[in-house]
Amino acid sequence: MTGKRGLTQQHVMRILGGESPDVVAARLAPDLANLPDVPAGSAKVTRERAEALWEETGLDQESRKTLLDGAAAEELPLYQGNIENAIGLMKMPLGLAGPLRINGVSAKGDYHIPLATTEAALVASYHRGCRLLTAAGGCSAMVLYESLSRAPAFVFKTAPDACRFIIWAMERLEDFQKVAATTTSHGKLIDMGVTMEGNHVYLNFEFTTGDASGQNMVTIAGQAICDFIVENSPVSPVRHYVESNLSGDKKASTKAYTTTRGKKVTAEALLSAELVKKHLHTTPRAMEQYWQMSAIGGVLSGTLGIHGHFANGLTALYLATGQDAACVAESATGVTRFEVTAEGDLYATVTLPGIMVGTVGGGTGLPTQKACLQLMGLHGAGKARALAEVCAGLLLAGELSIIGALSAGHFARAHRKLARDRK
Amino acid sequence: MTGKRGLTQQHVMRILGGESPDVVAARLAPDLANLPDVPAGSAKVTRERAEALWEETGLDQESRKTLLDGAAAEELPLYQGNIENAIGLMKMPLGLAGPLRINGVSAKGDYHIPLATTEAALVASYHRGCRLLTAAGGCSAMVLYESLSRAPAFVFKTAPDACRFIIWAMERLEDFQKVAATTTSHGKLIDMGVTMEGNHVYLNFEFTTGDASGQNMVTIAGQAICDFIVENSPVSPVRHYVESNLSGDKKASTKAYTTTRGKKVTAEALLSAELVKKHLHTTPRAMEQYWQMSAIGGVLSGTLGIHGHFANGLTALYLATGQDAACVAESATGVTRFEVTAEGDLYATVTLPGIMVGTVGGGTGLPTQKACLQLMGLHGAGKARALAEVCAGLLLAGELSIIGALSAGHFARAHRKLARDRK
Amino acid sequence: MTGKRGLTQQHVMRILGGESPDVVAARLAPDLANLPDVPAGSAKVTRERAEALWEETGLDQESRKTLLDGAAAEELPLYQGNIENAIGLMKMPLGLAGPLRINGVSAKGDYHIPLATTEAALVASYHRGCRLLTAAGGCSAMVLYESLSRAPAFVFKTAPDACRFIIWAMERLEDFQKVAATTTSHGKLIDMGVTMEGNHVYLNFEFTTGDASGQNMVTIAGQAICDFIVENSPVSPVRHYVESNLSGDKKASTKAYTTTRGKKVTAEALLSAELVKKHLHTTPRAMEQYWQMSAIGGVLSGTLGIHGHFANGLTALYLATGQDAACVAESATGVTRFEVTAEGDLYATVTLPGIMVGTVGGGTGLPTQKACLQLMGLHGAGKARALAEVCAGLLLAGELSIIGALSAGHFARAHRKLARDRK
Amino acid sequence: MTGKRGLTQQHVMRILGGESPDVVAARLAPDLANLPDVPAGSAKVTRERAEALWEETGLDQESRKTLLDGAAAEELPLYQGNIENAIGLMKMPLGLAGPLRINGVSAKGDYHIPLATTEAALVASYHRGCRLLTAAGGCSAMVLYESLSRAPAFVFKTAPDACRFIIWAMERLEDFQKVAATTTSHGKLIDMGVTMEGNHVYLNFEFTTGDASGQNMVTIAGQAICDFIVENSPVSPVRHYVESNLSGDKKASTKAYTTTRGKKVTAEALLSAELVKKHLHTTPRAMEQYWQMSAIGGVLSGTLGIHGHFANGLTALYLATGQDAACVAESATGVTRFEVTAEGDLYATVTLPGIMVGTVGGGTGLPTQKACLQLMGLHGAGKARALAEVCAGLLLAGELSIIGALSAGHFARAHRKLARDRK
Repeated sequence: MTGKRGLTQQHVMRILGGESPDVVAARLAPDLANLPDVPAGSAKVTRERAEALWEETGLDQESRKTLLDGAAAEELPLYQGNIENAIGLMKMPLGLAGPLRINGVSAKGDYHIPLATTEAALVASYHRGCRLLTAAGGCSAMVLYESLSRAPAFVFKTAPDACRFIIWAMERLEDFQKVAATTTSHGKLIDMGVTMEGNHVYLNFEFTTGDASGQNMVTIAGQAICDFIVENSPVSPVRHYVESNLSGDKKASTKAYTTTRGKKVTAEALLSAELVKKHLHTTPRAMEQYWQMSAIGGVLSGTLGIHGHFANGLTALYLATGQDAACVAESATGVTRFEVTAEGDLYATVTLPGIMVGTVGGGTGLPTQKACLQLMGLHGAGKARALAEVCAGLLLAGELSIIGALSAGHFARAHRKLARDRK
Repeated sequence: MTGKRGLTQQHVMRILGGESPDVVAARLAPDLANLPDVPAGSAKVTRERAEALWEETGLDQESRKTLLDGAAAEELPLYQGNIENAIGLMKMPLGLAGPLRINGVSAKGDYHIPLATTEAALVASYHRGCRLLTAAGGCSAMVLYESLSRAPAFVFKTAPDACRFIIWAMERLEDFQKVAATTTSHGKLIDMGVTMEGNHVYLNFEFTTGDASGQNMVTIAGQAICDFIVENSPVSPVRHYVESNLSGDKKASTKAYTTTRGKKVTAEALLSAELVKKHLHTTPRAMEQYWQMSAIGGVLSGTLGIHGHFANGLTALYLATGQDAACVAESATGVTRFEVTAEGDLYATVTLPGIMVGTVGGGTGLPTQKACLQLMGLHGAGKARALAEVCAGLLLAGELSIIGALSAGHFARAHRKLARDRK
Repeated sequence: MTGKRGLTQQHVMRILGGESPDVVAARLAPDLANLPDVPAGSAKVTRERAEALWEETGLDQESRKTLLDGAAAEELPLYQGNIENAIGLMKMPLGLAGPLRINGVSAKGDYHIPLATTEAALVASYHRGCRLLTAAGGCSAMVLYESLSRAPAFVFKTAPDACRFIIWAMERLEDFQKVAATTTSHGKLIDMGVTMEGNHVYLNFEFTTGDASGQNMVTIAGQAICDFIVENSPVSPVRHYVESNLSGDKKASTKAYTTTRGKKVTAEALLSAELVKKHLHTTPRAMEQYWQMSAIGGVLSGTLGIHGHFANGLTALYLATGQDAACVAESATGVTRFEVTAEGDLYATVTLPGIMVGTVGGGTGLPTQKACLQLMGLHGAGKARALAEVCAGLLLAGELSIIGALSAGHFARAHRKLARDRK
Repeated sequence: MTGKRGLTQQHVMRILGGESPDVVAARLAPDLANLPDVPAGSAKVTRERAEALWEETGLDQESRKTLLDGAAAEELPLYQGNIENAIGLMKMPLGLAGPLRINGVSAKGDYHIPLATTEAALVASYHRGCRLLTAAGGCSAMVLYESLSRAPAFVFKTAPDACRFIIWAMERLEDFQKVAATTTSHGKLIDMGVTMEGNHVYLNFEFTTGDASGQNMVTIAGQAICDFIVENSPVSPVRHYVESNLSGDKKASTKAYTTTRGKKVTAEALLSAELVKKHLHTTPRAMEQYWQMSAIGGVLSGTLGIHGHFANGLTALYLATGQDAACVAESATGVTRFEVTAEGDLYATVTLPGIMVGTVGGGTGLPTQKACLQLMGLHGAGKARALAEVCAGLLLAGELSIIGALSAGHFARAHRKLARDRK
């Protein structure tokens, strides 16, 4: 059983577990016998509804006690508008990294950063990086660009029709802006890209979204613009969709590097060899060398940027602060760069081409999430750019810590130790 | 201010907010004045430590009351080994989708699927898809392959040295398997890939990891193999690292399609035009047409697969069941395919090349997470493949629902309605 | 020898061919013994120089007779400025595809398209597609956008310095345009993109280049702008480069889809089931189905677009018409889309996000290349957009033919037959 | 006209050239008037056929004199089997780079490398790099792996059917090998990968192809295997295709990095600071710094590897030696790496994951192409690996030269000078 075929065969035998392919295949057929009732969904979030759902479904009562204990039942209504078919609450531990000193355009000061995670060593690692950065007088950070797109698509009979439509649409940006403005006071339509593929036209509407993350805002504005287009276009589309998958929504894409989804943000710091030695037990050159090798490792594996583990810190901060954690799929990409300066210091920087963050809307007003934002002084209007800068600073801290550990050969040890005494 | 330059200029003016570039740049310089104390981190998770941390940091006491209320303070020690610098608990609402009938190799039955999210409309949308699938007798699902890699890297003086090392290492797979076995009884080293780039050698160790997600397992085994190599190799590497960024850890990569990270899994269903009409208010052909356009939209935006929003359901299920949510960055990719059959039905399928899931270890033993797994009968040993099949089934439900909504023109409406009455 | 390791081992044994690793490795060491003379290069292209080079190098005289026969020696000086160290001429056969009727914005008429290739079946396949398109009244084609970028990069001490530089540079676009205008009367600087990554700044200058392909034009203009910047910038870069690899020059990149390199062009046609049957022996639905499967096949293999074999026809036309064939690396990407219309016809389209073509400069004035352009009426000023439209039409023909063959199961047969009677 | 919309509008006005959209759109409609005769294609390559084609088409007689002069007409029959609808010959100038000393596993010695190109400065730049490498005692080079795939695809009713098929197919590798062996004595089926996506199954057959490039070989073998499968499979596919676009044929793909298309090859050299200064007028550290910046530039633009301009040299060598130049689209990708060693030397390496080369078959037997191969001693059986090593060595030379020029600030100057005195 040489080659990849051999491995696949071994896997199949493992999966079949002694049963014949036919027996296993039979298990996979649709089965219309004894179909269960599927309850009509409910957007109402109350204790009574939740309890009714537990009753109807007949699910495990032990689970119910854990997920819908007295306190949970009481505060459940606070989640109205953030969940449907509510049955209780999930809890995750919060750990604190920092304080991290950030010298940003919007964020300025020493930030205690709350992280929600269940992964051992994660908070410890980011905390270590924060220590180092703060000892160096902090990192600088800045939002480089803001934009969120919604990309409706229109199908025409032929490409010439599509062309005529494009010419018309390009003259209507001001109209589209007016239409968008009727749906939101926070969002602003700032540009419109046009992508034509045969008789398909994608209009890529770019918005600023104030301090909200803004996905719903641009969806609703996009729909209003589509309605206007359908009503007014001299060339009628055969069909159209409010979103065509061109916007990059909830997906890692290289488009992020040429445009922006959310906020493009960067952070940097200059660290003396002495500080690197003290905090990371390695040298600037060793870290530059690891960076170089890992850059190529990433390219060889077909990843979209060059970085270590943006997803770890970003997810934990998103969860703590009520961001849409599914956006990690699109936001956790970018470039880390470490290099030795002429003076022998370590220059370290991270750039994220598009992170989705907000300090109003979404989950930011829920009890623990709001508390986490308030703990940093970042809840509410006027704070979204500062939160983006904190994200960048945190990820810089994390990259320093993990690449330090890998350079020094301590990576496995840290994980072994911190996960060991789990209950 | 034409062109992209014009937009960038507008953004800069927005960011500067009337201040001069020099004033703003000055804010960004390192600042060594009044450096804050950074507490030594602590892996001990107790009420006392948490309270001490709140005291020392002098953070907002309102936040403390929310994050570390009486109940939280009491159960905090249960999170020992999953967090450091613990300060309290984060809470998210749980909603129920389903029951979803799954006819899988490992999963078999009607699953009530708990989803943790703060995004309006998410549970409702997945629930709608589950309804449809269950009405059709369920979806089939199967794990196609399992493997998790750790990819140490070794630097040599020259490529010929690297070659000699490779020839030696290839003969030692059995030794490496023995070494790996000393560190874990659940994980098994099953293959070793070799990637050479000049004088760099990447050894890609592939493991099965039992019912655990397994990242720590393969890190520790990988370190042991590295130690063995350094001790025994006839050609000494100039330097080496236990992980080289080739494994794809926590990053979307195209490598996932030619290898696997975690579990490769697929789900499919055949749906009559009648059911599509009843549940989604559209037709199989309309959904095929949207699929086609969105496939191209995705390609044009540089995404790695073809799908709608895997990240949404996957994140919510990961969070509910104690998976490492940061893995969404690598797991939420794959292929959705909708087509009309010769009989006029809708054939719908999703394939995920590598999702990271476990039913033991990580966050799976924490109170609410364990309860969510138990509610599905999927906690503990022997359940990981079934959980992977549930993931695939859920995502198939979600793709049907969202693409149905986009095809029918209902997408924006649903979001507007469900987010409207948030508190 | 299971798994990938087993295959690699087999390969190594094949390569070593019975020799020991040490013996083989020894062959690879630098060898300073008997270093050959390396002649100083020469840009002068004359018969005498060529003959002198043959003498000095002592290379095989049989080869000389073939590469520098009497006719070649005589016309060699015509290649002055297109080659260095000239030793003779290479010859490739030319075949004719078409006439292909093109209804383009710039190209209009029936084009006999010369293709230079040594691959059996290539011309025959494209010819077959042209036949079909012409029988349908031709394909439409149009250039959607034009732009060529040169992307200098500037390194600063810190990100704040980089920011100050950007703010200055954005105000200087008009100056940059003036500077660029001193170097070229054909090229025009139309926009400037800015990409910042930590303390690195990439300025992406976009030009139109008239009827030339334009790489040298934008390099020279880019250098002049860099010189201006270094002299005038209030913040001095630590170092800078006229090209930073961000422009996508000579490399396939997803950036092509969000910007354009050269000319973005599309072609389309509507083909009755009858014509599809007559010319391709298959049906519109069969071709749509193949398209769908191959779209996913491409995505799974990590390609950048969705198409069959753009590179084949594009290379052959580039070679025949004096284009830079190395640009195939960047130009041969894009989207092919086939679908069945409501009426049962086949809608077929190709879109190429960026092809590099010119009708002046480069190799377009050389004897056979110029003759090929003239044969289509496309030599000289004012013809570049028409040539781009011919490219798109040709590639549409090729995609129809190959996908037709694959759908009908005739693909292998055609290759077997046409390569069979090679001499 | 701010933003991208503004640029697009300007472009549209340029394209319309004063005409109304409707007038221009009308030009694009299918036109069935006066359809031209499309000659039946012909695979026969004779002077008579060519002349007849010129007569029938009524094309420009000046072009004919250039493309089918007396010598061309005479040697035309030699191209039988490499072209259809032959009308004459295309000529390109050949320049010589080197001699380049290569210390390879298969290539060993000083190679004068013929390059066919029409781009000024190309040969001069590669020649400069060869000079440097040879002065250093040459570069080492080795083929790391060989494999060429053909990836048929099979569609089934359902995924369980697909599974049963896979289980059957995996047991039949030996049968498939026997079937393949009936079609070729040079090619060998060495492994079979399996990719399942819903009810779609891709079988990825990997072959070694002897000294031929091998695309036709694997197509014909693949077809034979498909025929065997259709006849013998216990589960009949609904439809199937001999190639599914998964093989990466003629397209850049990231798959190349995890598998191989053709030959995976690497070359490296160690160069003293003194040699770098003498030949490139720069320093190892300056080149390392440029490399680092350009690596990120490439990543930001969404390219698939990290390199400067592999396409240039590879295309020129492919053209000179009768390779399929369209393969540049897939072959011109990989990794260049420059770094400063602890001793202050420059370590330079290139790795190409898959280049398509052969020394028999295709265009390798044509007059000038064969002469070019013979000039290097690389024509015929047993030479393909050596040719691959020469490719790698040449590209290393080219990367050194171009990155040297960019680091030293000489890039634009060289292009301006060498293209200046074109006729």
